[in-house]
Amino acid sequence: MVVIIDNASFDKRPIGVFDSGLGGLTALRQIYKALPCEQVVYFGDTGRVPYGTRSDETVIKYVNQDIRFISSFDIKLLLLACNTATSIALDRLKDSFGFPVIGVVENASTAAVNATKTGSVLVLGTSATIRSKSYIKRLNALNPAIEIYEQACPLLVPLVENGRYKVDDEIVRLILKEYLDPFKGKDIDTVILGCTHYPLLSEAVQRTVGDCVTLIDSGKEAVSSIHGMITPNEYADRRDDRFYVSDSVHNFEALAETLLGETIYGSVEKVDIDLY
Amino acid sequence: MVVIIDNASFDKRPIGVFDSGLGGLTALRQIYKALPCEQVVYFGDTGRVPYGTRSDETVIKYVNQDIRFISSFDIKLLLLACNTATSIALDRLKDSFGFPVIGVVENASTAAVNATKTGSVLVLGTSATIRSKSYIKRLNALNPAIEIYEQACPLLVPLVENGRYKVDDEIVRLILKEYLDPFKGKDIDTVILGCTHYPLLSEAVQRTVGDCVTLIDSGKEAVSSIHGMITPNEYADRRDDRFYVSDSVHNFEALAETLLGETIYGSVEKVDIDLY
Repeated sequence: MVVIIDNASFDKRPIGVFDSGLGGLTALRQIYKALPCEQVVYFGDTGRVPYGTRSDETVIKYVNQDIRFISSFDIKLLLLACNTATSIALDRLKDSFGFPVIGVVENASTAAVNATKTGSVLVLGTSATIRSKSYIKRLNALNPAIEIYEQACPLLVPLVENGRYKVDDEIVRLILKEYLDPFKGKDIDTVILGCTHYPLLSEAVQRTVGDCVTLIDSGKEAVSSIHGMITPNEYADRRDDRFYVSDSVHNFEALAETLLGETIYGSVEKVDIDLY
Repeated sequence: MVVIIDNASFDKRPIGVFDSGLGGLTALRQIYKALPCEQVVYFGDTGRVPYGTRSDETVIKYVNQDIRFISSFDIKLLLLACNTATSIALDRLKDSFGFPVIGVVENASTAAVNATKTGSVLVLGTSATIRSKSYIKRLNALNPAIEIYEQACPLLVPLVENGRYKVDDEIVRLILKEYLDPFKGKDIDTVILGCTHYPLLSEAVQRTVGDCVTLIDSGKEAVSSIHGMITPNEYADRRDDRFYVSDSVHNFEALAETLLGETIYGSVEKVDIDLY
């Protein structure tokens, strides 16, 4: 039997991935697992992270610049791997480009509704994500009977960005206890990790809430939806992935490999984002 | 006796005060106390705070933009009320303008050398300040016999910016214990609070290190040196002070009055800092 491969049926264009900083690398890790043939252009706005404590107007301004930059590449899809950017800016943006733009709130909400048996769901996120009510709107639209609890966790991103997320870290344990203890006795069986930094804290969160609670990884859920939205690539050479950051390359590389869980093979370059 | 006041002998131009965010307000509080007749133009780069975890190249770029903005006012002196900006950028900047630019490292170092009896001094600062060795250089220049210890405290600025600095806050207590415990038994009697956010933590730091240790407030020391460097103003109406921020005015006002310790009387406006 002769197999004829039609090269024209592949789409070699990369997937764009954006985050305010390093958190989106947890979503990139999911792309490497679920879509190993796809090439990636990643932009992390490390010179202006964090977004989650800033105002809506500033987040919108920054995300507009970020997308102007990343859309200068010929990408086939853009993943906004940042819950703050998704919550504040996605609705204003998603129909403005010649490629699909997907966020991380919608699929995480669907996964939570599917996972909960008690009907009580807790959303953890940055101050901006919680203020936006993006998860409440989406969860209510999917199932108005869901009991939704929310907690803004402004100290978690600085912890993770400083490499503090291990399960045996006493500061991490106490901060999580402070954020999570108010929800004891609420019959919550599903927790949405509504920030792409938080999957690094999965083990510590799980220990705090107990093993019977399902944790939803917003980046992982978004990536699982990409499969049906794109024409796949034939093969990706990871060395051709391109990483861009707005602070120094050196600072990025140090923590990025920890968050990504493997070596960065592609190029890493600095970009002057306020020119966009 | 007739007293003749010569108006021409006053200098009504304001003092410029810059910080990466809100920390500089602790220095402004000292200006209100020590120089009540001076008017102030304050710029806080709240859209890009924190500086202390970013690279030198990014801090220098940001500080250049910040000073281009604040020097668009007719100021008589600029106080860089930010240890990170002072440590990374002051030497490159101080002779570039038609007004004196003073930082917060020099006077804090002098105060520490004058205060210590044991000759052992601990410097607390952001990662960028500690990496720069600015305090080591200055303290050594003043007295090479001083034993200098340093500790980078990257979690303190996020704590303060989130309103977490009270002495009875368990998270604050534990994080300070982690940063300060390694220096027990080193005969340290003087601690430099080498970040203008840290005076908010004075009470908590004092409880951790004990009452016999002298805490040096870098903003306060810098302000005490301004007196001899300027021609004073006749009288300042606080309602004519001008505050500028790079994120939303609303977010600034909420925390600023706490840090300043009094009502903000002047105008607060947003500025698009990446145009500078």
